[in-house]
Amino acid sequence: MISRANARGPADLRRASITPGFVKNAHGSVLMELGDTRVICTACREDRVPPFLRNSGKGWITAEYGMIPGSTSTRTARESSLGRQSGRSHEIQRLIGRALRSIVDLHAMGEQTIWIDCDVIQADGSTRCAAITGSFVAMALAMKRMTFQNHLKAVPIKDFVAAASVGIIAGDPLLDLDYQEDSMAEVDMNVVQTGRGKFVELQGTAEGRPFDGSELQALIELAEKGIKELIGLQRTIFPDLSV
Amino acid sequence: MISRANARGPADLRRASITPGFVKNAHGSVLMELGDTRVICTACREDRVPPFLRNSGKGWITAEYGMIPGSTSTRTARESSLGRQSGRSHEIQRLIGRALRSIVDLHAMGEQTIWIDCDVIQADGSTRCAAITGSFVAMALAMKRMTFQNHLKAVPIKDFVAAASVGIIAGDPLLDLDYQEDSMAEVDMNVVQTGRGKFVELQGTAEGRPFDGSELQALIELAEKGIKELIGLQRTIFPDLSV
Amino acid sequence: MISRANARGPADLRRASITPGFVKNAHGSVLMELGDTRVICTACREDRVPPFLRNSGKGWITAEYGMIPGSTSTRTARESSLGRQSGRSHEIQRLIGRALRSIVDLHAMGEQTIWIDCDVIQADGSTRCAAITGSFVAMALAMKRMTFQNHLKAVPIKDFVAAASVGIIAGDPLLDLDYQEDSMAEVDMNVVQTGRGKFVELQGTAEGRPFDGSELQALIELAEKGIKELIGLQRTIFPDLSV
Amino acid sequence: MISRANARGPADLRRASITPGFVKNAHGSVLMELGDTRVICTACREDRVPPFLRNSGKGWITAEYGMIPGSTSTRTARESSLGRQSGRSHEIQRLIGRALRSIVDLHAMGEQTIWIDCDVIQADGSTRCAAITGSFVAMALAMKRMTFQNHLKAVPIKDFVAAASVGIIAGDPLLDLDYQEDSMAEVDMNVVQTGRGKFVELQGTAEGRPFDGSELQALIELAEKGIKELIGLQRTIFPDLSV
Amino acid sequence: MISRANARGPADLRRASITPGFVKNAHGSVLMELGDTRVICTACREDRVPPFLRNSGKGWITAEYGMIPGSTSTRTARESSLGRQSGRSHEIQRLIGRALRSIVDLHAMGEQTIWIDCDVIQADGSTRCAAITGSFVAMALAMKRMTFQNHLKAVPIKDFVAAASVGIIAGDPLLDLDYQEDSMAEVDMNVVQTGRGKFVELQGTAEGRPFDGSELQALIELAEKGIKELIGLQRTIFPDLSV
Amino acid sequence: MISRANARGPADLRRASITPGFVKNAHGSVLMELGDTRVICTACREDRVPPFLRNSGKGWITAEYGMIPGSTSTRTARESSLGRQSGRSHEIQRLIGRALRSIVDLHAMGEQTIWIDCDVIQADGSTRCAAITGSFVAMALAMKRMTFQNHLKAVPIKDFVAAASVGIIAGDPLLDLDYQEDSMAEVDMNVVQTGRGKFVELQGTAEGRPFDGSELQALIELAEKGIKELIGLQRTIFPDLSV
Repeated sequence: MISRANARGPADLRRASITPGFVKNAHGSVLMELGDTRVICTACREDRVPPFLRNSGKGWITAEYGMIPGSTSTRTARESSLGRQSGRSHEIQRLIGRALRSIVDLHAMGEQTIWIDCDVIQADGSTRCAAITGSFVAMALAMKRMTFQNHLKAVPIKDFVAAASVGIIAGDPLLDLDYQEDSMAEVDMNVVQTGRGKFVELQGTAEGRPFDGSELQALIELAEKGIKELIGLQRTIFPDLSV
Repeated sequence: MISRANARGPADLRRASITPGFVKNAHGSVLMELGDTRVICTACREDRVPPFLRNSGKGWITAEYGMIPGSTSTRTARESSLGRQSGRSHEIQRLIGRALRSIVDLHAMGEQTIWIDCDVIQADGSTRCAAITGSFVAMALAMKRMTFQNHLKAVPIKDFVAAASVGIIAGDPLLDLDYQEDSMAEVDMNVVQTGRGKFVELQGTAEGRPFDGSELQALIELAEKGIKELIGLQRTIFPDLSV
Repeated sequence: MISRANARGPADLRRASITPGFVKNAHGSVLMELGDTRVICTACREDRVPPFLRNSGKGWITAEYGMIPGSTSTRTARESSLGRQSGRSHEIQRLIGRALRSIVDLHAMGEQTIWIDCDVIQADGSTRCAAITGSFVAMALAMKRMTFQNHLKAVPIKDFVAAASVGIIAGDPLLDLDYQEDSMAEVDMNVVQTGRGKFVELQGTAEGRPFDGSELQALIELAEKGIKELIGLQRTIFPDLSV
Repeated sequence: MISRANARGPADLRRASITPGFVKNAHGSVLMELGDTRVICTACREDRVPPFLRNSGKGWITAEYGMIPGSTSTRTARESSLGRQSGRSHEIQRLIGRALRSIVDLHAMGEQTIWIDCDVIQADGSTRCAAITGSFVAMALAMKRMTFQNHLKAVPIKDFVAAASVGIIAGDPLLDLDYQEDSMAEVDMNVVQTGRGKFVELQGTAEGRPFDGSELQALIELAEKGIKELIGLQRTIFPDLSV
Repeated sequence: MISRANARGPADLRRASITPGFVKNAHGSVLMELGDTRVICTACREDRVPPFLRNSGKGWITAEYGMIPGSTSTRTARESSLGRQSGRSHEIQRLIGRALRSIVDLHAMGEQTIWIDCDVIQADGSTRCAAITGSFVAMALAMKRMTFQNHLKAVPIKDFVAAASVGIIAGDPLLDLDYQEDSMAEVDMNVVQTGRGKFVELQGTAEGRPFDGSELQALIELAEKGIKELIGLQRTIFPDLSV
Repeated sequence: MISRANARGPADLRRASITPGFVKNAHGSVLMELGDTRVICTACREDRVPPFLRNSGKGWITAEYGMIPGSTSTRTARESSLGRQSGRSHEIQRLIGRALRSIVDLHAMGEQTIWIDCDVIQADGSTRCAAITGSFVAMALAMKRMTFQNHLKAVPIKDFVAAASVGIIAGDPLLDLDYQEDSMAEVDMNVVQTGRGKFVELQGTAEGRPFDGSELQALIELAEKGIKELIGLQRTIFPDLSV
């Protein structure tokens, strides 16, 4: 078994921390930290919905994802200079949006949109999982504020949601891969689950070699363990969210 | 249980057909049909690799995906007119590339690239699965030709690979969703597996409601059944591919 | 005189074929084949017109043209990846739109648009002429369906329209150039004519050497012969189109 | 017959004028005026050729076309702000390039490129014909200077080239359409010819109604008359160009 | 002290000239010449304002700036071909817009926009100052015409405005830098002032070495001298503009 | 005189703070805070220079600037989604680059580039001044590390550099405008100065009304006071930078 940084065991998350209110201008915001991975998640309200929802009575939640150029050890070119978002950014922001919409009652929101922005300021693996986990909190904070401003009658959240990465290195399943581990992984999986332990999203990829059913099972169990801990952390911020 | 078109059972694939040599100019090509979903897959050789592989001795396989505007019941705007590919196209073409690379010995390819293009000419659900299944054949045909032209010593394929979609509608797991079923599905999953039954990719999404572990298990089994049949079809085209 | 493939004479078209209904989702569609050139033409109805026609009572017909990357012997880069259509694509799609509008009574259409899409799936010269000839049929099929759906009172077509390419190679005028001939041609001309033998468009270019009036005359006569045959083929599909 | 501005007859050009040396920084430049249409044409030398000509020993001539926003009676949006050139600009600049290349011995140029830029500063119809006619002079001036600088042994021009527009209004063929006439024309044709009276390009379009062979003949004769006069004007600037 | 072209003293402007009505289609236009720098400035009226001013009762003035490719001694790539405006163009056009808005009563304009376009046809330094100085005249001419057409009750101009460049070369402050001087300058400053001698904009940059307060003072005085002369020239065109 | 937040006097900076090493992956980084304005500045080394400096022996410093969408009270659209940087971003990043280059010995750098990235995570006015002041520190930190890695013999910095904003509100000159003040300012100026008190850049704009020479003088003196304090803060981080 590979030896992990900071004497981490195979089923250990890195230190996780959620700092609410990190950006004062947004309706809701957090700094989400997962080891050295740090993501600013903000949630902003907009008073309309995309064209396909007009007159539907339903609300919408959409997400965008970016990395500041200095967040990676080799500078990442700024996407606005390149004139377009990468395929990877597109894929991640679609994933974040789906994850959050899965636990929100969009009808109860009424016709308004919440824009989620996840900006990675330091990248050390599992940025998309950190983004999902942090965005839930930013969104919930924004919704809370929206109830005070009479933009919502109640917080329309049906369950918590968080995500964890897992992978196989040298045959061993590991929880919460950092950047170096990620680049060595034979198999790599992201799991999104709710507070009730149901799957929202499952994305497993064989980077190095295909994997079999028992490996799949082991990975899923590891991910569930990590997600439970992350949702535990979310619950400390919303002790009275009745979901 | 919902009643499916053409009296299809929940574990039945639609009629699948692979027509090799559909486009004469490409090194390898097929028309892949899965019910009314029809995808042209072509494979073209290029005599160099992307910058990150130069002087590595390794080859590369990359994929692009598009839909002709008339392929959908409401016309899809042409991506070249819009000036960019959609997030969905990006996501699908990255998936196709990963799936094919997972069963090819890139070192044995040497420094050359195979470009896979999947152009959907009629869309009726499961286009990404049809694209993966058809692309394998287009790629293998191109590689065969490359051995005749001395661009390859042998076909560097380690295993077959194919993909199937599965989903849950009204609580029931179903194989190979068509467009109408896809839009009704509560859960939607794409599975990519090799001829030896190993996973290459697993992407499950809760569109309507989160799902639990036993549902996940049922979906995976259905997908495996479909993939076996599709690989059976691939084998009829390459009876002597010794993998 | 150069010897042509398949013992073709200088005034012979290649085998031409029009397969209606090739794409089921579009309002009208064909597969147009001219020798090895194969173009999918689809026609889709949209319930509005561009801004410059609003409240004019007039309809509009617009066309887009593309080539799938594997359609050419050297792979053509995908225009959506490049982020823009080439000058050549722009030029061809403007030509197709003008040709079709010239034989339609736009006032009788009312304020709706027909989108024509021409997607070349195999390119062997004369793709723009094949696109015009096939698009006429796709458009007429769509209009027929629109009469059934009460989107049109009658098919507002005033005449047939088709196109043929001609060129001069080694001093000899030839009809319907294939790709290899096209690349050798000294002069290259595309002619669009109606069923009544009137010109809609005439585009002649001296690629290698300027040409004189008698050469122009010979080319036009050849093109007229080819167009008559193509319109004959269109008439077999619409025997009762009273134009 | 419609009455034309300034008592112009149907076969009369507007006042044409070519001012050499209009822009001092370019290798060659003119202000080309055709009535109120005014185009700045510049020619700049670049010491290399596009990739497809490298190591071919051949030179290249390429053209770009634009309109300043204030050149039209309703302001034309700046193409650099829109982020792309219009289809019309693409089409025109391809035409200008082909016209100039047709009368130049590209082998005698050696591996260097001449960039032609045509910028319309006032538009009153026939801008593309003015651009071709003026560009010939700008290019020839640049080539002359290149002989002084030892970038060329001799001016590699094989013939003069110019262009004229013709059209049919109310059934009457007219030479050199101004903007108002152009918008009324039933048929519209641009002809490019050499000093020896050979065709380089012929582009006729039925805007309003298809046209027949005798109308085509009449239009071509009118265009030839206009082109002869424009080439006469070019000859006054290059009296000793031995072509 | 460096010796300047044409025996110019350090505090001398180059020959300045403003030709009104240079482009007939625009509402107002001039050719602005400052030595060999020549800029076409046009002003076009549009019957609406940008979204942020709707229902505000205020008008707007916006500017765009471009250079024709042949205007510089080495050809400048066409921004529409590159697909975007350079940072330099953006910066200059924002400056022009601010300068003009500073001396116009936008409330008195009502909800309409004046588009200013500055197109450099020959560049020899100080193009942005020439653009501001010429644009004022083009705008004032357009506003005059707008009073005749009842789009304005009176010309809503509160003061003249013009601009001059100054710089330090070899320690000496110089007025109105030409291209060669500009490329040698250690310090480079653009000043925009009104007819009453107030500052509208001041942009000083140390290209080679930082500068101190007394140098700043000397540069400002030189610029004021030049601007006074340019406004004198503007006054000859609008002798009765009561500002 | 307007009353400022937190009982600030007209010549008071907001609380300023520089946190070095804020992003661990970059060669140098800081979190720059000026009141509620917070900017992450990173500096990354690249082992080559832009084309115009190749074989010159000189190094280069270039900057990019962006705002995370949630940094402003109304969400700012993500520039990578829009497909381009705004004119404002372009202008600011050019300013940052010029400011830093003015105090670096580019020859002593040798042929390598330092990329500066300024990402605003919370915006409350004066973001460009905060970006310049913080970037100096990020750059100096990166250069220090480059001396350890033998990419530099010595830190090639000739002087400190920082920036402050000043403005006039209701006739009163104020130092360091916050967002609300900025939107009320009649005159707005950014000043960049070195540790020796020399000007690097001076950009004054009359937003509301032109200003005169004595107002200019007062603003400059205020800015100098603020810059001295900010450079004092920089000196605490580099007490032994011998400039």
